[in-house]
Amino acid sequence: MREAATRTAGPPAGGQVMAAEMAQQPAVLARLAARADAGAAAVRAVAPAPLAGVMFLARGSSDNAAVFGRYLAELEGGRPAGLAAPSIYTRYHAAVDWRGYLVVALSQSGATPEILTTCQAVRAAGATVIGITNEPGSPLAGAVDLVLATDAGPERAVPATKTVTAQLLLLAVVAAALAGNPQPQATASLAAVPGAVATVLADPGPAAGLAERWRGIDRLVVAGRGLGYPAALETALKVKEVTGILAEGISTADLRHGPIAAVYAGAPVLLVEASGPAAADVSDLRVLLARRQADTASLPVPAAVSETAQVIAATVRGQQLAWALARARGTDPDAPAHLTKVTVTS
Amino acid sequence: MREAATRTAGPPAGGQVMAAEMAQQPAVLARLAARADAGAAAVRAVAPAPLAGVMFLARGSSDNAAVFGRYLAELEGGRPAGLAAPSIYTRYHAAVDWRGYLVVALSQSGATPEILTTCQAVRAAGATVIGITNEPGSPLAGAVDLVLATDAGPERAVPATKTVTAQLLLLAVVAAALAGNPQPQATASLAAVPGAVATVLADPGPAAGLAERWRGIDRLVVAGRGLGYPAALETALKVKEVTGILAEGISTADLRHGPIAAVYAGAPVLLVEASGPAAADVSDLRVLLARRQADTASLPVPAAVSETAQVIAATVRGQQLAWALARARGTDPDAPAHLTKVTVTS
Repeated sequence: MREAATRTAGPPAGGQVMAAEMAQQPAVLARLAARADAGAAAVRAVAPAPLAGVMFLARGSSDNAAVFGRYLAELEGGRPAGLAAPSIYTRYHAAVDWRGYLVVALSQSGATPEILTTCQAVRAAGATVIGITNEPGSPLAGAVDLVLATDAGPERAVPATKTVTAQLLLLAVVAAALAGNPQPQATASLAAVPGAVATVLADPGPAAGLAERWRGIDRLVVAGRGLGYPAALETALKVKEVTGILAEGISTADLRHGPIAAVYAGAPVLLVEASGPAAADVSDLRVLLARRQADTASLPVPAAVSETAQVIAATVRGQQLAWALARARGTDPDAPAHLTKVTVTS
Repeated sequence: MREAATRTAGPPAGGQVMAAEMAQQPAVLARLAARADAGAAAVRAVAPAPLAGVMFLARGSSDNAAVFGRYLAELEGGRPAGLAAPSIYTRYHAAVDWRGYLVVALSQSGATPEILTTCQAVRAAGATVIGITNEPGSPLAGAVDLVLATDAGPERAVPATKTVTAQLLLLAVVAAALAGNPQPQATASLAAVPGAVATVLADPGPAAGLAERWRGIDRLVVAGRGLGYPAALETALKVKEVTGILAEGISTADLRHGPIAAVYAGAPVLLVEASGPAAADVSDLRVLLARRQADTASLPVPAAVSETAQVIAATVRGQQLAWALARARGTDPDAPAHLTKVTVTS
């Protein structure tokens, strides 16, 4: 009887926490979009002038968001941008002149030791540092010139979801702030993000169907270009984290430059599609993959919104796919084996 | 009789061209090391002063060399460094102010369209550009402020080997040139590189043995940290190119931050080991991997040389492994399926 009762209640399949946190994304994003202008003004108030460059400092999911920030900051801010290499400070203890630089440090927990250490080193060397974190009381928040809080509420599932899309939106705010002529429409276009994400969340069918088709895979290539590239990286990381599948995110240009040799007939490839200047590259790759008889798929995102909104929506599609793949394979998306929430990388 | 004669001559197993080009590396590197001081002086003569930052522009194998250059330039040059994102110029056509920047563009052929286009865009926007190429008569050489030729002779095998290690050495020359107080010993230490590489080439046993043990694998993780990280990236790319194995290069810190969940009992992991400040991270990872019963291996490099020389030697170890894996699996390392030498990525 007890067993039957348990069955009636359903087996503890897992993933409820991650699903609930994914579902909170439209509300979180709406909160941040409403504050976009104030956030941009705060960034403008601290940003160095003249600006030498912009560097992003992160690890893991935050590192994928940082790639998005790096593209947007250079596109809109008009100065070169890049990603910081923490080991230069945590291991090599290099003396580097950071004057004139804006550094954007991302850490959901605000407690990753190597991010903190690097943050302190570059700030002491002259950088202005913005911290994007979900924990305004964290050590990171105390070590920067300006905090932009993702304000996503507690994230309990090990795979980060709502904090990642919140980071993406805040990075768009930072980039808009750096634009030479502050354009209200730059932040205004962010108002469409919560709706685009809600549309995706209300339509789990495509990801569920793809997870069913791919439930037996043990490797996956996720390809994108331009602003879609970081969504490919994040989707691959999420799939890898929650399923153990060796998923690799790659730019379509890099894939074509060599690793396409590893794509065999039937090999699963997910294409991240977004409208915008890089869309043709993804279409071209689709043709090449068809010739190699790859098992190519993509997941739909809302069409009538900005490229930034589409990329954030595509990131949520990746979350859906990772979640559904884990469930289809009988693993618990909320607590993947051997993952912990705050890493001790230093 | 004819068949027997063919057998006596041995089957055309392939890989002779790649092996011959690998064997040329000590001579190529000796040539470049002998010119290191002159190269550094030429770099100092064109480098912007004051220097706003250093960016590396590349794709494929050259992109992995660029990661090495990025670490060294920031460590020795004392200003932030990063990797350029070509699509910002080839697709988004962004207007970015590159004044004060030194850009180092790497292309073996000097003919990759997206590298050329990006190079022209950043130079027109104020950057000083150094081109590292194996073709001094190429379009790239005509589009830069200074050419550093890898002078490696024609590279006929599709997988790049001698041009990659030549790039690594020239990147060390660039970094030494950017050091505040030009130190003769910075380039002097490069004199040990050809010998370190010769030592590795004279000892193919470890890579051959590992290839035999791993001949059946279909995925591989290659992990390194600090200056060893780009050697991990390049080893993974080479294995992927010549065998089709889905090999992934990753920093030990990123692996520990999440993807270690994808490492199961028996999963093959290659650790790139070099002495230096990041060595302890690799040792720590080895312990973690042992607990997960991963199939961990590393390949020896000469001990009594600089970290830079060790990393270049480790890159040659990766070439040996890729070559031996391809041979063990019956594929031709000289001409992997579907790879061409100059890509059309634009």
